[in-house]
Amino acid sequence: MHVMITGAAGFLGQRLTEALIDKGSLNGQPLSRLTLLDQIEAPRPEAASCLAVEPATSLDVAIIAGDIADAEVLDRCLAGEPQVIYHLAAVVSSAAEADLALGMRVNFDATRLLLEGCAARGLNGTRLVMASSVAAYGGDLPETLGDMTALVPQNSYGTQKAMSELLINDYSRRGLVDGCVLRLPTIIVRPGRPNAAASSFASSILREPLNGEDAICPVPTELEMFVMSPRRVVAALIKGAEVHSAAFGLSRCFMLPGITVSVAEMLKALADIAGEQALALVKHEPDPRITAIVGSWPARFDTRKARSLGFAGDADLADIVTAYQQENTET
Amino acid sequence: MHVMITGAAGFLGQRLTEALIDKGSLNGQPLSRLTLLDQIEAPRPEAASCLAVEPATSLDVAIIAGDIADAEVLDRCLAGEPQVIYHLAAVVSSAAEADLALGMRVNFDATRLLLEGCAARGLNGTRLVMASSVAAYGGDLPETLGDMTALVPQNSYGTQKAMSELLINDYSRRGLVDGCVLRLPTIIVRPGRPNAAASSFASSILREPLNGEDAICPVPTELEMFVMSPRRVVAALIKGAEVHSAAFGLSRCFMLPGITVSVAEMLKALADIAGEQALALVKHEPDPRITAIVGSWPARFDTRKARSLGFAGDADLADIVTAYQQENTET
Repeated sequence: MHVMITGAAGFLGQRLTEALIDKGSLNGQPLSRLTLLDQIEAPRPEAASCLAVEPATSLDVAIIAGDIADAEVLDRCLAGEPQVIYHLAAVVSSAAEADLALGMRVNFDATRLLLEGCAARGLNGTRLVMASSVAAYGGDLPETLGDMTALVPQNSYGTQKAMSELLINDYSRRGLVDGCVLRLPTIIVRPGRPNAAASSFASSILREPLNGEDAICPVPTELEMFVMSPRRVVAALIKGAEVHSAAFGLSRCFMLPGITVSVAEMLKALADIAGEQALALVKHEPDPRITAIVGSWPARFDTRKARSLGFAGDADLADIVTAYQQENTET
Repeated sequence: MHVMITGAAGFLGQRLTEALIDKGSLNGQPLSRLTLLDQIEAPRPEAASCLAVEPATSLDVAIIAGDIADAEVLDRCLAGEPQVIYHLAAVVSSAAEADLALGMRVNFDATRLLLEGCAARGLNGTRLVMASSVAAYGGDLPETLGDMTALVPQNSYGTQKAMSELLINDYSRRGLVDGCVLRLPTIIVRPGRPNAAASSFASSILREPLNGEDAICPVPTELEMFVMSPRRVVAALIKGAEVHSAAFGLSRCFMLPGITVSVAEMLKALADIAGEQALALVKHEPDPRITAIVGSWPARFDTRKARSLGFAGDADLADIVTAYQQENTET
């Protein structure tokens, strides 16, 4: 099994690479080859050398630093005829909003080049799994969204993802590639430090107090979000390679089963697990700009399609928080 | 007022050109210039010379034969800084299905080039009115569709139109152009002869008997369609240039207010207007292929957005049929 990952140096790309190596197979076939593409060199996975000890499970890892929107770079990756492609490379929403041409090039043109490259090489059996986003939703939304709710994105990142979704669906319908688009909920708890993303606080108000540090909550505690843990997102990406093509029906694109939580519930989970002294580290400093952005994101979804295909969400917030603690005990 | 029309040599392009010249103005400004682009030369509008008699309303008509997806051709058109662009050029659904690259080039890349061209020339006040289609809908549809029903097209033409819609919405949101996308119902009664379109019968079963000729009805009479007359579509295109930008809200794309009619109702209108001898000219020869295609098109829409913006539909089928008779008395 040859798996290619775009955006392999990113947070999800690295987590997925590790998970695939730990699993040792995908869709019942031994993992034999990884092609890791990103604009910088993705870190060489640590476990790869261990696997290489046993010849029957030797793993060939190609790490390629290059421009995802350069047809020659993509063609070099596709020449190895990957059976599964994880398309995670993206310019994030703030950058796509600041530079329309860059966002179009990376978030849309690269997807199109990937599809055209697969079609040109006859890779019609290749499963292309793309990560899309809740940012593709917008407009006059109902209280609970379903997979037949229109995508009326109010940002260029969401527009470019929605266009990519349409193209993957059409190429799949025509039998030119075997696509699957997973719309990701907001991922919590991300490791590391706070960043410029409007949703950064959602990880920060849990992560920092768990590490004994102060955190700022910029939104009202009644605000709701639709969230999923990193390990469930990675499990969903793996599942995305394993769903039978016929099971998708008329659309390859759907929202993953996140859970709807209020900020108040997030803070209660923090207090339950780490005590009142952890909760006391969260300072409330309302920020109307962040509240407006995050408050515009839908938080309630009917995800029956994803569930019927076998995708699973987190049990509850306690599950998400304890998973973060377990995964980060050595740091 | 400088108006540019792509697809100007087509049925709708010609009807719109005539209507604009008859009206003599658009959005309260005298029509001074027309740029008519198509792959073949659009016919020179007859009334233009009459208007030119009166210097105050002289009309400069530029007829350009060229490739809509050629940036140089488009730039030549945009150099005149049109205040309204009607983007009607398209490769129709059967051709887009037969040739993916051609459909992408004409139905999507040309739209993108138009948008990028407007942005590059600073034409952010230019109203771009694009015709989209019921073919953009598909998938697991509800019984009555609304403007927040997802576009899950099951054909490449609909995919390319849906992608163009997203891009026009994003360029409009960013203030780079002032877009408006009208999703057209099935147009009846088209003049002329039957053609290869699956929907051709819908005009044919009215038009041919009205002209004393036989027609074939290939679908069950209980089949429903969502229809609009040519004159109402042209009126909607004109209205599309006149709606205030602020009135669109979060989406520039919506279905026009067609009317839902069954084939039985169409045949009853024919009998009411032209008598039982006209009805007797319609032969019923079921065609499962046409029934499958047309039967998959949604026929019931909640069009409150279009109506609230001032777009009007036909009163009823009798209105549609008598309008065809009036418009075609000289032929």
